[in-house]
Amino acid sequence: MSDLHGYYIEDLSEGMTASYAKTVTDADVVLFAGISGDDNPVHINQEFAENSMFKQRIAHGMLSAGFISAVLGTKMPGPGAIYISQSLKFKAPVHIGDTVKATVTILEVLAPKRRVTLKTVCTVKDTVIVEGEAVVMVNSRNK
Amino acid sequence: MSDLHGYYIEDLSEGMTASYAKTVTDADVVLFAGISGDDNPVHINQEFAENSMFKQRIAHGMLSAGFISAVLGTKMPGPGAIYISQSLKFKAPVHIGDTVKATVTILEVLAPKRRVTLKTVCTVKDTVIVEGEAVVMVNSRNK
Amino acid sequence: MSDLHGYYIEDLSEGMTASYAKTVTDADVVLFAGISGDDNPVHINQEFAENSMFKQRIAHGMLSAGFISAVLGTKMPGPGAIYISQSLKFKAPVHIGDTVKATVTILEVLAPKRRVTLKTVCTVKDTVIVEGEAVVMVNSRNK
Amino acid sequence: MSDLHGYYIEDLSEGMTASYAKTVTDADVVLFAGISGDDNPVHINQEFAENSMFKQRIAHGMLSAGFISAVLGTKMPGPGAIYISQSLKFKAPVHIGDTVKATVTILEVLAPKRRVTLKTVCTVKDTVIVEGEAVVMVNSRNK
Repeated sequence: MSDLHGYYIEDLSEGMTASYAKTVTDADVVLFAGISGDDNPVHINQEFAENSMFKQRIAHGMLSAGFISAVLGTKMPGPGAIYISQSLKFKAPVHIGDTVKATVTILEVLAPKRRVTLKTVCTVKDTVIVEGEAVVMVNSRNK
Repeated sequence: MSDLHGYYIEDLSEGMTASYAKTVTDADVVLFAGISGDDNPVHINQEFAENSMFKQRIAHGMLSAGFISAVLGTKMPGPGAIYISQSLKFKAPVHIGDTVKATVTILEVLAPKRRVTLKTVCTVKDTVIVEGEAVVMVNSRNK
Repeated sequence: MSDLHGYYIEDLSEGMTASYAKTVTDADVVLFAGISGDDNPVHINQEFAENSMFKQRIAHGMLSAGFISAVLGTKMPGPGAIYISQSLKFKAPVHIGDTVKATVTILEVLAPKRRVTLKTVCTVKDTVIVEGEAVVMVNSRNK
Repeated sequence: MSDLHGYYIEDLSEGMTASYAKTVTDADVVLFAGISGDDNPVHINQEFAENSMFKQRIAHGMLSAGFISAVLGTKMPGPGAIYISQSLKFKAPVHIGDTVKATVTILEVLAPKRRVTLKTVCTVKDTVIVEGEAVVMVNSRNK
C-alpha cells in the first residue's frame, strides 16, 4: 500500500503549502453534534442563537479544526504522518453556508527528529476563522 | 430561552470539573471522515492501517477534541460560553471500540475579563490520549 | 402526484397488516443521537452500558418507534395518512445488530370520521420490544 | 462512571421540569428518513407536500418524540432512567426551520415502585405540536 503514502521528511521544506476547502451545511453541523455529543444550542437551536451574540447558528469550531486535520492527513504531509500537536485560536464564527478554506504552510522541518511545524489557518473569504500551529511526525525514506 | 444557558462567570471557581464519555465506533469514524474530509487511510483503510505503526485503524484526533468541545459547550461552562482557544497534544491513538472520556478542570477564573482557563484531558481507561488547555469566555449575570 | 398516494379509507378493513424491518447498526444509533440530541450514555458509552442493567449499549426506543412510523407512512395506510396518536410500551431493549420488525394491524376502521386504529408491535425475533396503538386519519376517495 | 448518572428517585418531586430545544433542519429530516425508513413523500418530496393539506414538507412526528427522549435521557431523570412508556398526540405539524422545544414536568413520583410519571409537551413558539405522558423507572440511592 506504499502508493498511498504521502510526503516523506526528505520531500518537505519551509514554505510549502496545501489547502482544503468545504462548504459547511446543516448536515455537517447535525452530524458533528451526533458524533461529538456537542449539541450546544448555539449550534442547533435557531431561536437561542438569534438571541446570542452571534445572531444566528454557528458551526462547531472543531469542525473547522477537522479541515486542518484533513489537509495534514490527506495532502501534506499526507498519509503516514502522525499528528503530534495542534494549537487553535478561534477568531471568528463560521455560519451555515460558509465555505471554509484550511491552509497549512511549513514553518520548519526538523529532519533529525522527523518533525515538521506548520502554520495552520482557516478562512472564510478573507476572514481568518481559526489559526494556530501544528506539529507532525513524518516518515523517512531511509528506514 | 435563558433556561438553556449554562454557568455564568460568577458560578465558576478553580478546581471545578466536568466530563463526557463516548465509545468510538466505526460509524463515528466514517461520519467524521465524511464531514471533515479527513479520509487519511489510517482511519478508513484497514489494510493500510495494519501496515502502519498503529497496526489497526485509529480514530481521528479531532474527534476526541470534539468531546472536549462537548463538555465545554454542554456541561461546563455550558451554553453561552465562547471558545477562545484550545491546545491539543495527541499522546496516544484511539482505536475503534475505545471509550474516550473527556474531562475539563478549571485552572483559573479571570472574572474581570470573563475568561476561564481549563485543563482538558481525554483518556481511554487510564491512558491519556489528548491533553491541553482551553480558554473560554463566559457571560456575567451582571449584564 | 396522486400515484404516490397510499390506501384510501374505503380500501381498509379490520385485520389488514403490514410490516417493515431493519437491522439497527452503530451508525443508526450515532445518527439518532445527533438528530434527537439524545446522547444518553446507555446508547453511546460502552463502559457505562456494561455497568447498567442492560450490560451493553442499547438503541433508542424512539428509533423503533420510527419503524412504526415508517410502516404507517410508507406502506399502510401509506402516503396521505395523517398521524393522530401513538402509544408506546417499551418492553425489552434493542441491541446493536438486532433486526427490528415493526408490524401494524388494523383494529378498527371508523369510515365516517376517516379514522383507523391499528395495533403496532416491534419485535426482535420472537421478543416483543415495543407495543402500542396508533390512530391515523386517512383520505377518502369521495372528496 | 457513576458520575455520569442522572437524578435518583429520591431527588425527584412533583412539578420539577426540564427542557430541550432544537431547530429542525432539512438534514434532520433526511437523516431521520434514512435511519427510520420513513420516507413518506410528505417529508421528503416537496411537490407531493405542496399538494397535501400541509402545503409544505413537514418533519416526522417521531423526531419531535425523540426530543422528549432527549430530555428524559439526558436531563431529567437523565442517565440511568429506563423508559417504560410514552403516549403521543400529534396536534400540529412541524415545518423545516421550526425550533421545537420539548418540556417534561413530573406529575407523580411512585417511590416504592421507583416510577415517575411526566407530562411531555413539544411546542413551536406557543403552539403545542405533540403532547402526552411518559413513565420512566429511576434508580434508588439505597440499592
